Amino acid sequence: MAPPPPPPHRAEVEYLVRRALYQRMGKSPPRRVLAPNPLVVNVRARHCHLTPAAVETLFGKGATLTPAQDLYQKGRFVAGESVTLVGPLGRVISNLRILGPCRSQNQVELARTDAIALGLEIPVRSSDSIAGSPGCTLMGPAGSLQMNEGVIRAAPHVHMNPDDAAFYNVKNGDIMHLRVGGPCATTFDRLLVRVHAESRLEVHIDTDEGNACALGPDTPVQLLS
Amino acid sequence: MAPPPPPPHRAEVEYLVRRALYQRMGKSPPRRVLAPNPLVVNVRARHCHLTPAAVETLFGKGATLTPAQDLYQKGRFVAGESVTLVGPLGRVISNLRILGPCRSQNQVELARTDAIALGLEIPVRSSDSIAGSPGCTLMGPAGSLQMNEGVIRAAPHVHMNPDDAAFYNVKNGDIMHLRVGGPCATTFDRLLVRVHAESRLEVHIDTDEGNACALGPDTPVQLLS
Repeated sequence: MAPPPPPPHRAEVEYLVRRALYQRMGKSPPRRVLAPNPLVVNVRARHCHLTPAAVETLFGKGATLTPAQDLYQKGRFVAGESVTLVGPLGRVISNLRILGPCRSQNQVELARTDAIALGLEIPVRSSDSIAGSPGCTLMGPAGSLQMNEGVIRAAPHVHMNPDDAAFYNVKNGDIMHLRVGGPCATTFDRLLVRVHAESRLEVHIDTDEGNACALGPDTPVQLLS
Repeated sequence: MAPPPPPPHRAEVEYLVRRALYQRMGKSPPRRVLAPNPLVVNVRARHCHLTPAAVETLFGKGATLTPAQDLYQKGRFVAGESVTLVGPLGRVISNLRILGPCRSQNQVELARTDAIALGLEIPVRSSDSIAGSPGCTLMGPAGSLQMNEGVIRAAPHVHMNPDDAAFYNVKNGDIMHLRVGGPCATTFDRLLVRVHAESRLEVHIDTDEGNACALGPDTPVQLLS
């Protein structure tokens, strides 16, 4: 059974309402209202990506990931399955969620708070760039998987398509700033730009960053080049 | 027995070395080297402040706090005693440290991550401004203390003396920015200025903020008005 479609993000609703209001008033909207897509900022809690072989090792021969909840990026989902992570000092994180679909290498993305709890020094990396990072053990109901590397802190990043990149005047690999307002106003100054034809405009920050700026559904956010 | 004096902060050493180098070179130093004091940024983990009466309730009649470690601000210390915090849902934080000396009201300062773990919504406040904040129970070896309010998230802030305030051209209650460099570069945009004749120049951020920007002893920091 397919998971239920997620409700629209508040940023999507506000984007549509704002455009409609300017149109009805017959006024020329400010530049940010003319952006091709709404700016969605989501906090990504710790999670892992697995290869098809790793899923079989952990969950049994022939096992595949079960989509439990769709993510904002098309085709991406939170799996119903989860694993237990054991760090090199024997410390444990239970119920580590798995994001699907499967990838070509195994990777664990933790916040710095998680890494401190495990007693692990992890590098800040772009996703998929795991060379030289520490490893860990993942345990599932059917077996365990020794990862020799692959535990990273994901650098804050923004997914966008070429229309968004043109609007913000940036290209893949550039660095932008994410300004977050509200009582804990914070600007993330090294937001990595990742451009892909199929991407929806979405910023990913981790739980440390989300809690530092107290990001809520109504917190004002702004992308700056 | 008095606690051992803390080693100098790396920022203090760098400040002295930088001034000496410019003097030896006979070159006129840039403005930041002319600042009256080094800029020290410290992460404050969750802690509480107690009244003398609360210390007696928790640790027994006649009990006082034992200084175990000096803090950067003169006369402030981490106590050897600690308490257990019980939140309204019965969830617990053990070994909550107590900062001394005693104050005129009881106050608990948590990061947002701590508050989420307790299931508590806490406001972002300047220290001592606790009206309307949630309460909790503190437990010590000799008794427990019911706080009806006083659990807050401390707003990031900078302590300074009037010379620092003149140099940065700010006054008590103003808002500054703290720019943190490095691979997780982050700017804290609502840094509250607290001016006091006896204060040493020091920024306090909490563990969420410190982990978001991955603050280390060699991370570059800059105060901007």
